[in-house]
Amino acid sequence: MRFLTAGESHGPGLTTIVEGVPASLPLSTEDINKELKRRQGGYGRGRRMKIEKDLVSITSGVRHGKTTGAPITLTVTNDDWVHWEQVMGIDPVSSEDEHRVNTKKLTRPRPGHADLNGALKYRHRDMRNVLERSSARETTMRVAVGSVAKKILSELGITIGVHVLNIGGVEANGEYANLSELIERAEASPVRCIDEQASEKMKEAIDQAKANGDSIGGIVQVVAEGMPPGVGSHVHYDRKLDGKIAGAVMSINAFKGAEVALDLMQPICLEVKFMMRFIGQKKTDTEEAAIVLVDLKAG
Amino acid sequence: MRFLTAGESHGPGLTTIVEGVPASLPLSTEDINKELKRRQGGYGRGRRMKIEKDLVSITSGVRHGKTTGAPITLTVTNDDWVHWEQVMGIDPVSSEDEHRVNTKKLTRPRPGHADLNGALKYRHRDMRNVLERSSARETTMRVAVGSVAKKILSELGITIGVHVLNIGGVEANGEYANLSELIERAEASPVRCIDEQASEKMKEAIDQAKANGDSIGGIVQVVAEGMPPGVGSHVHYDRKLDGKIAGAVMSINAFKGAEVALDLMQPICLEVKFMMRFIGQKKTDTEEAAIVLVDLKAG
Amino acid sequence: MRFLTAGESHGPGLTTIVEGVPASLPLSTEDINKELKRRQGGYGRGRRMKIEKDLVSITSGVRHGKTTGAPITLTVTNDDWVHWEQVMGIDPVSSEDEHRVNTKKLTRPRPGHADLNGALKYRHRDMRNVLERSSARETTMRVAVGSVAKKILSELGITIGVHVLNIGGVEANGEYANLSELIERAEASPVRCIDEQASEKMKEAIDQAKANGDSIGGIVQVVAEGMPPGVGSHVHYDRKLDGKIAGAVMSINAFKGAEVALDLMQPICLEVKFMMRFIGQKKTDTEEAAIVLVDLKAG
Amino acid sequence: MRFLTAGESHGPGLTTIVEGVPASLPLSTEDINKELKRRQGGYGRGRRMKIEKDLVSITSGVRHGKTTGAPITLTVTNDDWVHWEQVMGIDPVSSEDEHRVNTKKLTRPRPGHADLNGALKYRHRDMRNVLERSSARETTMRVAVGSVAKKILSELGITIGVHVLNIGGVEANGEYANLSELIERAEASPVRCIDEQASEKMKEAIDQAKANGDSIGGIVQVVAEGMPPGVGSHVHYDRKLDGKIAGAVMSINAFKGAEVALDLMQPICLEVKFMMRFIGQKKTDTEEAAIVLVDLKAG
Repeated sequence: MRFLTAGESHGPGLTTIVEGVPASLPLSTEDINKELKRRQGGYGRGRRMKIEKDLVSITSGVRHGKTTGAPITLTVTNDDWVHWEQVMGIDPVSSEDEHRVNTKKLTRPRPGHADLNGALKYRHRDMRNVLERSSARETTMRVAVGSVAKKILSELGITIGVHVLNIGGVEANGEYANLSELIERAEASPVRCIDEQASEKMKEAIDQAKANGDSIGGIVQVVAEGMPPGVGSHVHYDRKLDGKIAGAVMSINAFKGAEVALDLMQPICLEVKFMMRFIGQKKTDTEEAAIVLVDLKAG
Repeated sequence: MRFLTAGESHGPGLTTIVEGVPASLPLSTEDINKELKRRQGGYGRGRRMKIEKDLVSITSGVRHGKTTGAPITLTVTNDDWVHWEQVMGIDPVSSEDEHRVNTKKLTRPRPGHADLNGALKYRHRDMRNVLERSSARETTMRVAVGSVAKKILSELGITIGVHVLNIGGVEANGEYANLSELIERAEASPVRCIDEQASEKMKEAIDQAKANGDSIGGIVQVVAEGMPPGVGSHVHYDRKLDGKIAGAVMSINAFKGAEVALDLMQPICLEVKFMMRFIGQKKTDTEEAAIVLVDLKAG
Repeated sequence: MRFLTAGESHGPGLTTIVEGVPASLPLSTEDINKELKRRQGGYGRGRRMKIEKDLVSITSGVRHGKTTGAPITLTVTNDDWVHWEQVMGIDPVSSEDEHRVNTKKLTRPRPGHADLNGALKYRHRDMRNVLERSSARETTMRVAVGSVAKKILSELGITIGVHVLNIGGVEANGEYANLSELIERAEASPVRCIDEQASEKMKEAIDQAKANGDSIGGIVQVVAEGMPPGVGSHVHYDRKLDGKIAGAVMSINAFKGAEVALDLMQPICLEVKFMMRFIGQKKTDTEEAAIVLVDLKAG
Repeated sequence: MRFLTAGESHGPGLTTIVEGVPASLPLSTEDINKELKRRQGGYGRGRRMKIEKDLVSITSGVRHGKTTGAPITLTVTNDDWVHWEQVMGIDPVSSEDEHRVNTKKLTRPRPGHADLNGALKYRHRDMRNVLERSSARETTMRVAVGSVAKKILSELGITIGVHVLNIGGVEANGEYANLSELIERAEASPVRCIDEQASEKMKEAIDQAKANGDSIGGIVQVVAEGMPPGVGSHVHYDRKLDGKIAGAVMSINAFKGAEVALDLMQPICLEVKFMMRFIGQKKTDTEEAAIVLVDLKAG
């Protein structure tokens, strides 16, 4: 499975093409929209999230509710494109019109962002050309791809769950009985934390950070159950599971660190569980992990 | 430069994402539509070509007429989608509706096509699931990508021309004074052949083949001028120019053979010219060659 | 399966690492040496071929006669290294010694070779640095890799045969009853041609060309039997069988053209046969085709 | 730059082929042996390290002390191969001899290692077939490749330094004046820590862990100076610097976590510095980071 993502934060929309998905997998827009909605639901999300109600269109690779084996195209239209048509227009503009369409020029790089580096590398004077692509809005398409990967995994009996262990220094009691219980409890929490008391304190920490204009860190844990043994490989460095997972996870802007632990559950190892601690503030992690797992199964 | 193409012959449309295009390249829908029109203009084209008037939309990677360095999304909508919405519908259908939407089932494989192989590989009962993707309609997106590649090459002072040397056994006199003359004369011919007498005979051969329900072979020659020395590499097998060009060209359904010749024009070799003879009947070759060249320049 | 090849024509030796070979495949140095010997046995081979008696060493990935799944290292030592130790030495030389070790400098590019292009690309004054790597000696390692691929194919019940159809304009009667008969008759001929009368004329044509200092072209045909349906794929351009085979074959210096034909042998298509016509003069083709097939099976 | 590594821990030797190294780079066996010696010098290293005195041979891609642009082959012979020739022999053994050569069979998987997973994936009864390849001995070749990468970086004015911040809970004062001072002080310490008092305590912690048969964790920091802006890219997920570094680092057995921080040193950002905290116990990190940086520069 390989995929390319495309689209600017305030452009007409976002697109991804996913190549290598097996045929006859049940797949509907609902499967994907469900995950897109989860992405937008996190506590403390910005105003943008409330504006956009992301809905996906499938325009290839699926017929009558099932994949055909051909490349799948997924598109999410940006609802507020109408307000950005001039600033982000595709067509050439005459030099006299330039000042009219360039009202959102970014000439002062924001610290901690790709603005300055991107501008130097691609020689842009208007750093909006960088911001529009380096924006976290790109993760919308990764969640979309991840939801396809999740469908494949669920056909293989693999479940992936995620919960938050720490936000802004507030540590949660992360104990749980089994994975389906974990998922249910996490999804019921506004901060996706299974410890109710900690959830409340985390919300306060987020509110506080927002009030101060600060960002806030945290740790999420991803748990996979039902993994067959032998995913990844010991024979060559670029096929090792730890490296592939860490590489994929760290390609998400919000993640600044990753740890991987593999636990053999039983002496005969018919099941492999893995966990990751991500130090970050985003909640797209489940989907990203799903992509990596599918990739490894194919590899 | 890398790209994925997607879309079915009678689906909602065709999409490609092109990643790795340099920033600040002038690019408009016109640049691409011009080549799409060329693709549809060949003598003896089927009825489908007359129905579709392919027009591209750019939805990412280009702002105010210039590329930004971000992935470029190109889409061509299928004009007759309205007639195929049920047969090629994305959404699941209930079992009682299935007979209603499956009116175009293909259960008898056509010889010389991917139908049977694809059906066995992907386990499709309805070979329409293969036909829709293996169709030559896919080359629409390759022409679109090729037109982007051609823009890059033209910025580098590289010109690519194409002309037909042989159709159905009719051989043309392929002599020309220089590349711009070649292009002008070839584009003026309905069969893209610079020998007017041979052109007429080729048209007759095509008409005859059509009347008999036969296909017809031929040879086209692609000429690149202005190539810098050192494209490709002698150091490793998968970076050699001949192999890359042959591999790209032969991935087009219609091409069944390829020959490559490199001619050093001058003793000091400041210019490299190459030619290919393709044994086939399609005219998408210029664009495909453009893609390979760009890929090699980056490699 | 992926592999890198390394080594200069007159360096200490040639090496390849092959990654992705399945475990438990029987593999011995004999399997590989047999094919290396075939490579050196062609009629009209140069003097070099008589000097080198290529023998392979396996130094990883195989234990007690079976592959382990780990990367396989294959090495062929150059027997005449002792005569080239100074000219091709690895260690730095002082400037006063330079004239002593540079006795084989190549400053005049040979037409039809990579000498000039390579020198311009990599900025070499001494084109021996290009010649040593662009030499056909590199195909030794491809034959070695191909012999591993052939072992995998033979485990899967796939046989690959090769015979020569044309040398220097002498056409052979290429009819045969079945593939094992074809292989037997071809291997018995000094020019690998199953038509005895044509064989004699081909030898004369080769002798004539040698006497005149000419090169000579030809056509070889590769036949694969026992291929399962579904090798390659119709869903994406870079996974198509024709393109992959043509790309691999044309990366061999001696091949200047390739044609691919797929024949469904039976209406129910449980078997797929393919043939290639290579316009060239080398005999490494069987092995190269074996590599591509294995690659496609994994893809 | 791409490379494959090969070789078993107790096989005849280790090999790597590095493809894509620029021509005319000064490179000698000394450059590589220096780093191999560093790898073997860590405090608390096992007995194996004392046996092996790793020395590299270059057998391709370098001539008279300079790279030619062709693939580089590096080989390290295992000094104790003579004791393992039967157990790890390449040649087939007769069934009656099998018991004689299988004296080092591993049938009980070691927890925390790849033994069981690898055996299930590749269907090995003797887990020695897994152990021999999953062993940390493989990092020898990565250090060798890294030393080539370091040479390229040093030509570009980029310096990479590494020091240990924490071993077994002992935290070091990691302050330093400039990078060359950091490197000098770190290399002078047996545990590569620039805080002398902490160094002593770390050695005690290591001795203690060894006495108890425990492993021990730690944190190392890698610092790169002189990086040009624009390494990596914001335009596509798989070209992001953080993801590439984390993926490469985590493919080393000993590393269980990675954090990346990018610091713009100056408001006008003509220089970019980055740091990584690795939670692990190995000292191969500098080289691995060098490989990733070179890869990114080419990408």
